[in-house]
Amino acid sequence: MALIVQKYGGTSVGDPDRIKAVADHIARTARAGNQVIVAVSAMGKTTDNLIRLANDVTTKPAGGREMDMLLTAGERISIALVSMAVNDLGVPAVSFTGSQAGIVTDTEHGNAKIVEIRGDRIRAALDAGSVAVVAGFQGVSTAKEIVTLGRGASDLTAVALAAHFGADSCEIYTDVEGVYTADPRIVPTARKQQRITLEEMLEMAATGGRVLALRSVEYARNHGVKIHVRSSFTWAPGTWVTEENPDMEQAIISGVTHDISEAKVTIEQVPDQPGVAGKVFRSLADANCNVDMIVQNVSTQGHTDISFTLPKLDVARMEVVMAAIVAEIGAKGFQTDPDVGRVSLIGAGMKTHPGVAATMFETLANENINIEMISTSTIRISCVVRQHDVENAVRLLHDAFALGA
Amino acid sequence: MALIVQKYGGTSVGDPDRIKAVADHIARTARAGNQVIVAVSAMGKTTDNLIRLANDVTTKPAGGREMDMLLTAGERISIALVSMAVNDLGVPAVSFTGSQAGIVTDTEHGNAKIVEIRGDRIRAALDAGSVAVVAGFQGVSTAKEIVTLGRGASDLTAVALAAHFGADSCEIYTDVEGVYTADPRIVPTARKQQRITLEEMLEMAATGGRVLALRSVEYARNHGVKIHVRSSFTWAPGTWVTEENPDMEQAIISGVTHDISEAKVTIEQVPDQPGVAGKVFRSLADANCNVDMIVQNVSTQGHTDISFTLPKLDVARMEVVMAAIVAEIGAKGFQTDPDVGRVSLIGAGMKTHPGVAATMFETLANENINIEMISTSTIRISCVVRQHDVENAVRLLHDAFALGA
Repeated sequence: MALIVQKYGGTSVGDPDRIKAVADHIARTARAGNQVIVAVSAMGKTTDNLIRLANDVTTKPAGGREMDMLLTAGERISIALVSMAVNDLGVPAVSFTGSQAGIVTDTEHGNAKIVEIRGDRIRAALDAGSVAVVAGFQGVSTAKEIVTLGRGASDLTAVALAAHFGADSCEIYTDVEGVYTADPRIVPTARKQQRITLEEMLEMAATGGRVLALRSVEYARNHGVKIHVRSSFTWAPGTWVTEENPDMEQAIISGVTHDISEAKVTIEQVPDQPGVAGKVFRSLADANCNVDMIVQNVSTQGHTDISFTLPKLDVARMEVVMAAIVAEIGAKGFQTDPDVGRVSLIGAGMKTHPGVAATMFETLANENINIEMISTSTIRISCVVRQHDVENAVRLLHDAFALGA
Repeated sequence: MALIVQKYGGTSVGDPDRIKAVADHIARTARAGNQVIVAVSAMGKTTDNLIRLANDVTTKPAGGREMDMLLTAGERISIALVSMAVNDLGVPAVSFTGSQAGIVTDTEHGNAKIVEIRGDRIRAALDAGSVAVVAGFQGVSTAKEIVTLGRGASDLTAVALAAHFGADSCEIYTDVEGVYTADPRIVPTARKQQRITLEEMLEMAATGGRVLALRSVEYARNHGVKIHVRSSFTWAPGTWVTEENPDMEQAIISGVTHDISEAKVTIEQVPDQPGVAGKVFRSLADANCNVDMIVQNVSTQGHTDISFTLPKLDVARMEVVMAAIVAEIGAKGFQTDPDVGRVSLIGAGMKTHPGVAATMFETLANENINIEMISTSTIRISCVVRQHDVENAVRLLHDAFALGA
């Protein structure tokens, strides 16, 4: 008997008809002889609507304990409805809040980390022949408070449950058919991948691929969880995201991602002394600025320029910190540029294929797309370009590496 | 320092503006030097909307565990919003689900009974100077499942918390100004009562007065809780519902109530043998039929007629039971009459004033309103009449006892 974890996102359970379709699929999976744990997000726009209500009753945006109390109502509604609908098909199902599911976290409201899973109640439900329907995105803290795990964390709930119970697979149902070689809205010939590695998925999630949340992929990689990303609208087989299999032939490039949510910051004429960069990025980290790419050029005449990117949402906080730090370290100043975007090539195969970077830079140069920053990992190359060049760059690279259908 | 429990119903917290008005009142009460526990219902039509969703995903109306999981989302939303709004005014407030508030119940989903209140977390919040905002209508069962206490049970939550913490008063905020001598929509001269006894309130709740739920009044009487029914729209002083005070002058009649939610059933020619009535009403009780008034006439020729009333919602179940029982006891048959209504006079003062019943019957007879059933308690007289006579009967009795403004 296999144990399967299925996760359904907000659009998958967006209305009663969708919930009935999902319940039907869950019931089929159970009837086929599998034990099933289901993680569910809040229906459609529920979370956004609750946040709007919160903003309507307060003078300033609220977070923390009461916001978590509010938002967790969303998944409570969806787990109850999914359980009812599955029961209605004659397959027993029991709903569990994050707390009842034993998802124990630290005390950071709004962005709690899972510290332990106490799976007794879910285990008992499975042993009794029931489907366990678990609220995604939420848990109970070590201080017995209700917490949320951060946006998009329903994926994390599913992956963490799959890891804890040693599930045979973790099926992430969404409104797309799988992981594509590029965003199909930008590249009409983009192809669905049958299989990619967790490392590739990690790089994709970190560079703008919106299919899986970054934290859930990290968790899956750390715990060896096999993920199957697929559509709850067509139910067709999607993309398997698994550990690398050395026996399998590896495509050189598995996809092109892009991201326009970050801004570029350049600190000009930073004195070239030990400890300066540490000071800058420690101050930014202390102010909760999520710095992403960092590039430092070689020094000329005792000065260097340091550039980095960070989410546009963090720019206001960053500018307060930078105004102080620039004076402290004796730099000339800093400039924030929001009109940038990042294009990334990802592929485990590039490790053994030289020349990928050269092809990427040549492809962009041939179309007069200027590269402003470069950063690489063993399986990724990212270039920061002007924001208005991003979509064209994605299409050019998708063609250059023959990724299309 | 006084401890005040305040309960806000669904219309009182029906939208963000209402929630802000309620938060303002809570903050004022706290700033005046009181400890405050607040019990809150779900916003406006939330519960109805959730029930509609449940009916949309199942083929048959659902109850039980998953329905409780679903419905408790409603108060979760309102306690979080009320707490945020109170905090926003600079007064600390902490929300508690029924489970967190320590409202421990039996295991009857949908209609659980409170068995214990474990008040540590609320007590800690009060001691820390916070307002405690508690979800009405819900608790946690001895089996650690989430349960609801039955419709209208947010009043019960408030009264039970007031009893447990020895509150100085339990303020029930609603959309009317207090308890009236009759329904003002039917009797324009109906007067707001400044004060009535818990016994009178109990009889009113049982006979159609919609201001307080019956169970909450029973609980208040059993635990000596002082209730103040008042409006969250005008904030004007309302009606005090308290234990009888022998020193106070007592009005003879405190109000006229009416109810058209019940049907009348007559079992014809019941053999006049010991045990027959017991058999009938045991069978009805076993089928969860809430029988209300019962009238048996004196026997003639070895037969008698037995009439009773019960909620129209229970009629279908009742008819199944009666078909069997009529044959079993050898009665002639039974008839169901849904076109009836009940008019009741309530007043602790009637105990010491003879002639109230006579005046009531004469008043109705003078207008050719036929009385079909009568039942009495020491402080109440109820008459079943034709449904189309009900409103007129209420007005006539209100006049006859000079209850008007």
